[in-house]
Amino acid sequence: MPKPNVKEQLVATSLSLLHSKGFNATSVQDITTAAGVPKGSFYNHFASKEALGLEVLQRYSEGAARLASALHDTSLSPLGRIQQYFHDYIESNAALDFNCGCLLGNFSTELSNQVPAIRQEMRIAFGKSSGALAGVIAEGQRDGSIAATHTAAELADFVVDAWQGAVLRSKAEHSREPLDRYARVVLGRILV
Amino acid sequence: MPKPNVKEQLVATSLSLLHSKGFNATSVQDITTAAGVPKGSFYNHFASKEALGLEVLQRYSEGAARLASALHDTSLSPLGRIQQYFHDYIESNAALDFNCGCLLGNFSTELSNQVPAIRQEMRIAFGKSSGALAGVIAEGQRDGSIAATHTAAELADFVVDAWQGAVLRSKAEHSREPLDRYARVVLGRILV
Repeated sequence: MPKPNVKEQLVATSLSLLHSKGFNATSVQDITTAAGVPKGSFYNHFASKEALGLEVLQRYSEGAARLASALHDTSLSPLGRIQQYFHDYIESNAALDFNCGCLLGNFSTELSNQVPAIRQEMRIAFGKSSGALAGVIAEGQRDGSIAATHTAAELADFVVDAWQGAVLRSKAEHSREPLDRYARVVLGRILV
Repeated sequence: MPKPNVKEQLVATSLSLLHSKGFNATSVQDITTAAGVPKGSFYNHFASKEALGLEVLQRYSEGAARLASALHDTSLSPLGRIQQYFHDYIESNAALDFNCGCLLGNFSTELSNQVPAIRQEMRIAFGKSSGALAGVIAEGQRDGSIAATHTAAELADFVVDAWQGAVLRSKAEHSREPLDRYARVVLGRILV
């Protein structure tokens, strides 16, 4: 049997720990203990906790992109795709009992001034989310189903940012309501 | 001359430090050094860093309420009050170079699962912001200047949450643009 890949184990364990506890509240010791590997082995794979944090953020962004697959489902209308996309994101938060928020948002508030490489990665991740959504909004604007009072890029950026706020309040209140409210207002007032 | 109040000095210094660096990245030693008081004196005034955090959050919320004074300026129309309120909040972020975000939002992502008393205080602070804004939106709905497709409470909660998202992205990108975009979409699409 192949030896379990220690680096992979550290990334996977950290993704869950950093998401639920936050970056600065999680020590390298917490991570190696949870991963069941000797503390010393951490530094064979990562120069620092910040280097691990960057890799965890990239891994999380890949998962978020997969979770956004509804945006590419052309069997649905543009608005239908966006509705499904919100649904999938809300359920992924429900699976974590509305306790963890979005890792991207958590890192944004905690690490923006601390780790330039992570900040750069956050800009990329936000840009990708906005870009994917803007494409669908533009399609809806072309067929007349989505309001064209603002550019698709402007609406997409706003909607992506507002999601972060809804997730933040959902986490603060351990409640689903801010996310449902978000979907109601975005779908019932902003886009139509 | 009266002796400077050490407790007050600790709260004022911590407000600035915790806002810019975050809760977990700031040690009691950082705080006492910045306040110019002996480390031991900290525990004469606060049982823990968490107890100080709670007091700092209360102090911050008082400041945020003062900053929201435009909402009570009845010389302005309801929409005019909200526009001025956004302007004042955006300028307060500009004064910190879009580097610090909102302490309430930062604590929400960092401490929601860590300190129950702080989470309770955050719920109160969010509720106060939403309540103040909902009153103005309701007034605008009565005089027909603000859309009545959703209740004032629903719109106010959404707008308060979305602000947190805009501030989070503004901090992640060290940029004013997410806040200006927020004001454009909320005033030009959601409320009217």
